[in-house]
Amino acid sequence: MTGTPPSGPRSHGNRFVPTVSKGAMVLVLGVHRSVDELFPTGVLRDALHPTGEDDPAYARALDDVRVVETPADLAECDALVTFEYEPSFLSADLAWIHSVQAGVDRFPFDELEARGISLTNSTGVHGDSVGEIVVGYMLSFARRLHRHRDRERTREWRYPDWDEAFTVDGESLCVVGLGTLGQGIARRADALGVDVVGVRRTPTPVEHVRTVYTPGRLELAVADARFVAVATPLTDATRGLVDADVLAAMREDAYLLNVSRGGVVDEDALLAALEAGKLAGAALDVFETEPLPDDSPFWSMEEVIVTPHAAGANREYYRRVAAIVRENVRRLAEGESLANRVV
Amino acid sequence: MTGTPPSGPRSHGNRFVPTVSKGAMVLVLGVHRSVDELFPTGVLRDALHPTGEDDPAYARALDDVRVVETPADLAECDALVTFEYEPSFLSADLAWIHSVQAGVDRFPFDELEARGISLTNSTGVHGDSVGEIVVGYMLSFARRLHRHRDRERTREWRYPDWDEAFTVDGESLCVVGLGTLGQGIARRADALGVDVVGVRRTPTPVEHVRTVYTPGRLELAVADARFVAVATPLTDATRGLVDADVLAAMREDAYLLNVSRGGVVDEDALLAALEAGKLAGAALDVFETEPLPDDSPFWSMEEVIVTPHAAGANREYYRRVAAIVRENVRRLAEGESLANRVV
Repeated sequence: MTGTPPSGPRSHGNRFVPTVSKGAMVLVLGVHRSVDELFPTGVLRDALHPTGEDDPAYARALDDVRVVETPADLAECDALVTFEYEPSFLSADLAWIHSVQAGVDRFPFDELEARGISLTNSTGVHGDSVGEIVVGYMLSFARRLHRHRDRERTREWRYPDWDEAFTVDGESLCVVGLGTLGQGIARRADALGVDVVGVRRTPTPVEHVRTVYTPGRLELAVADARFVAVATPLTDATRGLVDADVLAAMREDAYLLNVSRGGVVDEDALLAALEAGKLAGAALDVFETEPLPDDSPFWSMEEVIVTPHAAGANREYYRRVAAIVRENVRRLAEGESLANRVV
Repeated sequence: MTGTPPSGPRSHGNRFVPTVSKGAMVLVLGVHRSVDELFPTGVLRDALHPTGEDDPAYARALDDVRVVETPADLAECDALVTFEYEPSFLSADLAWIHSVQAGVDRFPFDELEARGISLTNSTGVHGDSVGEIVVGYMLSFARRLHRHRDRERTREWRYPDWDEAFTVDGESLCVVGLGTLGQGIARRADALGVDVVGVRRTPTPVEHVRTVYTPGRLELAVADARFVAVATPLTDATRGLVDADVLAAMREDAYLLNVSRGGVVDEDALLAALEAGKLAGAALDVFETEPLPDDSPFWSMEEVIVTPHAAGANREYYRRVAAIVRENVRRLAEGESLANRVV
């Protein structure tokens, strides 16, 4: 399906099914053009169109799905799926806004609540993508794939030094933050024979994690780990969490892997530790300043892997967002509480 | 422990334990200098010295371990651990030769047998190392790590195209050859949510492999796979096994991963398929000519990962070889049949 369906005044007519259950809410759902930042808006819109395989409740609940490019488009919508936040969303008489990202710190929670606009996010969609890239980082360091790639460019055939390559099997990992991302990392590392410990505020047992430490014991938690993966959200409590003391508590043959936010790791302290040989290396997907500036020393360090905030990149991303939106369209129409609700 | 212990005429005295069981065989074990190709000879020699933690039978069986650099050194040995084969081994009155590699095609089986020299190999030590690098290749392609590394050199911060990155979770793999290497690959891929099929001569069930095909059905086996990993030994039956027809049977979005021997894959056909866009890419650890010649087009292809016959590289390699040798020293002394015996 291509192109935007023709739109008139908000009709609550029914383009997808012949009848509407009496008393049920039917929605015009907008897909804001800003989702283009992550995947084509039209791809998500098409994924939200009801199909013959859908629960009939979904088709009944949805009047239309349309791409939103102008204030006039927005005015016709009851709900909006978006990447960006714009102040105009507050006065558009929306019942519900869905963020295609997990992070929603750009949204004004109080003002949304005052206007009775629900906000939901896409938390939970990145566990597989991020878990896999972190295991990929670990295997790159162990099996030396990043260095082989460097030598491919110069056509240099060089077997690693005899004590250079290793296996992650039998090594140890500390996962800082055991939410969706951290658990996705822990499960995969455990499956590859890695001994996994973790850190989170509530030290209750987590599957695939041998020992869960509280943040106050972070230095103890990282002390034995060959790999330390940082996967906590950025909050006031986690800003600068991985500081010079934590880095000093790590093994000299340890690798730091950061897939959370740049602000969680003290970059100056990390750079100093790497330059002094107090750490073996790092894989960094996030930075205090993004894009990473041209003059950052991280770019040229052999044992630092830089990725462009792409740990969550996944061609299936839009499908996973669509699944959450579809579920919530049905719930909203049937008066149930929304999944992934933030406001 | 450093330096070579002093050596005299073959004494069958006992440097390591005070008494020798009557009737038991005691060995002078040589470590041929050629093992330096893989790890320092002295490191392996030291790992073979009896320790207080050893089974006393091992210490009793071993008279001495010494590095072999000259024919005189060799003449004092009853058994030899080696990387290279030299014709002089045949006339050195050895009872047993152990190859530190799994491959033993350089040894003259008939002549060894005629002289009553047993030959054992190191098969089984590479399952973890090779399994991990193959999963590392898969994750590199899916999470785009090889391309991120390329852009690191030019300090280019570029998010992948929206439909470029994927997860191996939910994808499919065909493992051609289900010995130690193939099973090490299958187990790890299965643990990461990959649907695994495989190919081997005897189509009996293999753990972590949904369907086992016989070699005659190779084209069918690879047809649905996003990844095809080649992990069979090079024999008359497998030379050229992955030819133009097999490559043509693969999906156009499939990746070929070769950790067996160059001769198993038809390189010209592979190159043609890659250049014609009939395959998505390849990760190649082995080639028909090694080192890979400077003018090989594989070096410069973005979606080809070249590694220098290093899939098995592992700093623990010497320990695993030592474990096999220790077990066989004990068995030889006690008259049991040798493990990993080839001749």
